[in-house]
Amino acid sequence: MEKLIITAAICGAEVLKEHNPAVPYTVEECVREAKSAYNAGASLIHLHVREDDGTPTQSKDRFKVIIDAIRKECPDVIIQPSTGGAVGMTNDERLQPTELLPEMATLDCGTLNFGGDDIFENTENTIKYFGQRMIERGIKPELEVFDKSMIDMALRLHRKGFIQAPMHFDFVMGVNGGIGGELRDFVFLRGSIPSDATYTVAGIGRYEFPLAVAAIIDGGHVRVGFEDNVYLSKGVLARSNGELVEKVVRIAREFGRDIATPAEARQILSLKPLQ
Amino acid sequence: MEKLIITAAICGAEVLKEHNPAVPYTVEECVREAKSAYNAGASLIHLHVREDDGTPTQSKDRFKVIIDAIRKECPDVIIQPSTGGAVGMTNDERLQPTELLPEMATLDCGTLNFGGDDIFENTENTIKYFGQRMIERGIKPELEVFDKSMIDMALRLHRKGFIQAPMHFDFVMGVNGGIGGELRDFVFLRGSIPSDATYTVAGIGRYEFPLAVAAIIDGGHVRVGFEDNVYLSKGVLARSNGELVEKVVRIAREFGRDIATPAEARQILSLKPLQ
Amino acid sequence: MEKLIITAAICGAEVLKEHNPAVPYTVEECVREAKSAYNAGASLIHLHVREDDGTPTQSKDRFKVIIDAIRKECPDVIIQPSTGGAVGMTNDERLQPTELLPEMATLDCGTLNFGGDDIFENTENTIKYFGQRMIERGIKPELEVFDKSMIDMALRLHRKGFIQAPMHFDFVMGVNGGIGGELRDFVFLRGSIPSDATYTVAGIGRYEFPLAVAAIIDGGHVRVGFEDNVYLSKGVLARSNGELVEKVVRIAREFGRDIATPAEARQILSLKPLQ
Amino acid sequence: MEKLIITAAICGAEVLKEHNPAVPYTVEECVREAKSAYNAGASLIHLHVREDDGTPTQSKDRFKVIIDAIRKECPDVIIQPSTGGAVGMTNDERLQPTELLPEMATLDCGTLNFGGDDIFENTENTIKYFGQRMIERGIKPELEVFDKSMIDMALRLHRKGFIQAPMHFDFVMGVNGGIGGELRDFVFLRGSIPSDATYTVAGIGRYEFPLAVAAIIDGGHVRVGFEDNVYLSKGVLARSNGELVEKVVRIAREFGRDIATPAEARQILSLKPLQ
Repeated sequence: MEKLIITAAICGAEVLKEHNPAVPYTVEECVREAKSAYNAGASLIHLHVREDDGTPTQSKDRFKVIIDAIRKECPDVIIQPSTGGAVGMTNDERLQPTELLPEMATLDCGTLNFGGDDIFENTENTIKYFGQRMIERGIKPELEVFDKSMIDMALRLHRKGFIQAPMHFDFVMGVNGGIGGELRDFVFLRGSIPSDATYTVAGIGRYEFPLAVAAIIDGGHVRVGFEDNVYLSKGVLARSNGELVEKVVRIAREFGRDIATPAEARQILSLKPLQ
Repeated sequence: MEKLIITAAICGAEVLKEHNPAVPYTVEECVREAKSAYNAGASLIHLHVREDDGTPTQSKDRFKVIIDAIRKECPDVIIQPSTGGAVGMTNDERLQPTELLPEMATLDCGTLNFGGDDIFENTENTIKYFGQRMIERGIKPELEVFDKSMIDMALRLHRKGFIQAPMHFDFVMGVNGGIGGELRDFVFLRGSIPSDATYTVAGIGRYEFPLAVAAIIDGGHVRVGFEDNVYLSKGVLARSNGELVEKVVRIAREFGRDIATPAEARQILSLKPLQ
Repeated sequence: MEKLIITAAICGAEVLKEHNPAVPYTVEECVREAKSAYNAGASLIHLHVREDDGTPTQSKDRFKVIIDAIRKECPDVIIQPSTGGAVGMTNDERLQPTELLPEMATLDCGTLNFGGDDIFENTENTIKYFGQRMIERGIKPELEVFDKSMIDMALRLHRKGFIQAPMHFDFVMGVNGGIGGELRDFVFLRGSIPSDATYTVAGIGRYEFPLAVAAIIDGGHVRVGFEDNVYLSKGVLARSNGELVEKVVRIAREFGRDIATPAEARQILSLKPLQ
Repeated sequence: MEKLIITAAICGAEVLKEHNPAVPYTVEECVREAKSAYNAGASLIHLHVREDDGTPTQSKDRFKVIIDAIRKECPDVIIQPSTGGAVGMTNDERLQPTELLPEMATLDCGTLNFGGDDIFENTENTIKYFGQRMIERGIKPELEVFDKSMIDMALRLHRKGFIQAPMHFDFVMGVNGGIGGELRDFVFLRGSIPSDATYTVAGIGRYEFPLAVAAIIDGGHVRVGFEDNVYLSKGVLARSNGELVEKVVRIAREFGRDIATPAEARQILSLKPLQ
């Protein structure tokens, strides 16, 4: 079985210090969290950024400052900016971090409810636009899918040339508004992607570790981090993203699954080796 | 096996006379199409209405006129208005036909892309609001789901009291933006609903008859009609909704599945008998 | 979608004239039944043979006489002898018809109960032996599987060189002792074979036509015939194998699936063209 | 989620000291292994017995001696004799340990290959006979199933009165001759049992811990032990059954799943409390 890529989603756009005081807002905090995850075994940092007061931003400059700062401490880690953005942003505002030409970036493959009055909007035209920009900029998309329909959309747009193979999916499971986080949900999504595709699972909240281990034994990859879940175990807040990564490493070891270094992760994901 | 409920979605909000000249706009045309479907074996009419020029409307008055006219020709048919509405409508505008206290009405259980720049919006709060109004008005919702996440949403809102059991689902499959229409998609959705729930399948376009027969052999129910598909077979336009229903009846007969009368459909769906 | 190969299992080892007087025992009866199926659209005859009194036999001579007689009336049909045999037969007795070098023959991929005290025995060593003989004799095996474990066995023996790709499976479903005949069973088996494999479904008894249509809409192939089911519809005996094939053709036509000629079936199954 | 029942299959009929020197043959060795498993968290001992030289036996006397000896050291553990027996044994020989009126015993629900020339025979009549004896003797069967067909058989015999609800299944997965041990196999079997049934998974060889964790996160129960697997991790022999149980306990703790005591296991399995 391939080595295990652990992605740390260290920050997120919605989780706050009120949920866990270790949630990072400032540059220093982001570096601290990235470093703790990297040291624990994460080869990939999925990155949202904020202003010092916690306001989410897609500012290219803010992304640059934080990416450069993380890079100093984690020289070979893969950094994957989010293009999720916030309500009311234009496509180009959301795509700002891709102007920095990162190796990867997320590409959300559909529209869904996010609770209450909220909708996370990604129209078909938006997905096409994002796909094209990433091809032009040489960025490998992490295809975030919240349900089967988004896999079907990604495959359709792949056939139309907006997304290139081999595709890499991120199954985000257990969001209120997306598919649940049961094993049969996982097995269904996992059986819906092409045989040359790779995947990561991001289980939200209490689904984080159950879905992580499902991917571990199935040969997939794992995303954990404050964006998805702030608890190490029931009622126990994680003190850092590193603690969440450590738990994944410990579980993987029980099943004899080795952890990928950033260089190995690049190979698995068909990224170019770091210069 | 239970008898087969055939629903005819005679009109739809998006299909036009340009697609098939038999698509009904006027009162007379709606009656003609409802009657052809009813005579062929449909026990349930799923109803969108339009102005004479084809403009979709949720006008209570227009619904009343058309329902009354259909009722004259199809005295015992179940009429199920759509609450889908159109972009920009308020919840209460969409809910207008429910003020007529029909036996059933549709309740869309999530938000999804509808191609290009379009989004079919049904936030969690909207779904709750619609659910509550239908409980108050004694209307059984047909829970339209376009993917697994919407079943999960319906089950969550059922637990919270916004939707009552036994639930009746409509799996709308093959929409660009929703789940595909393959057998494994169907089997997955079908295995995701409670054991006391009933379901109908609406396969879009070329999925209409393959998914109809899947439901026929599985013990589920079937929706066909111009809203979902205007072809009788590849390249051959159906001359009426009745022709589509006839084809389902003919297929059902091959498998020994009997067709439910409106009275039998009411019993299967736990509706009150007609007075 | 590929054209539909219809296999007629005209005789079987266990079904008797007591079940349906049209079940063939004599040479003339076998020819009559093969011809009726062929004329109706079957491109492949799956063949068990018996003595005139109905006793099943694997006699090479009896197979030769019947195959030659069928060949006269159905010059291009594919004839696939069974190697199932009867309790107490040695492997070589069961393999006798393969000495006639037919294009195909069945290869049962496991052992299972057949009701009461009966076991249909096919040990791993037997399967290997049959596989080897068929490779040596240039015969394409139809891999009869009665449950998932038998697919797993076939794949294992393929990896060990006893079975060659592209593999062709026959899902025999609904036998008492084998996997049931529900849609989810079908979807599970169908999702378990390699992407370059083909498959046929043989639904037993009341599962015959429901599983036939599942294969029709899924792109698979269909086996019907007295071996599997003697009824045209509930309580109505089929007057010939041809009637069962006609029903499949009629159903396939509803879904726009064309019927393969023997020449087209050979191409789909990677058999050599007939000289 | 219910507490986790851990079953230790300490001995088995086929695993030998050549595979792992800690495999128990003598009374003392059986007690040592049962105790190590019990102390580590097993609430149920699945028991095969042998003569001191390792020869498997179904002797009622040998079972009695070993059960009594285990009982002294593990006073409240549930002891579940195997009725698997060996080739050539009569039904009554296999059923001998049930004359001791244990709380549970295994009931194999079908026939399958066991590699090479071997067949594990359990005809439909044998299963009925075993079911009846267990009902008469007040013994709850653990329904051993090696594939979906055996679940279908168990459900059929339940409807005929040979097996009582609530049923408890043991999915034995990964045997050469049975269903494989992938997650989709597990999810399929797990979705095939009644909603009031419980289940345990016994993953064979390298599937032991992956399937154990699948059951842990899914709410099922787990069987480990030398019968199924002698390795603690790749290439590392377990020094005792207790080590295997400890590993399950450690994994369960990562997911917040508590371990059932024997009293709690009896409640979950609908067994009478110990007097």
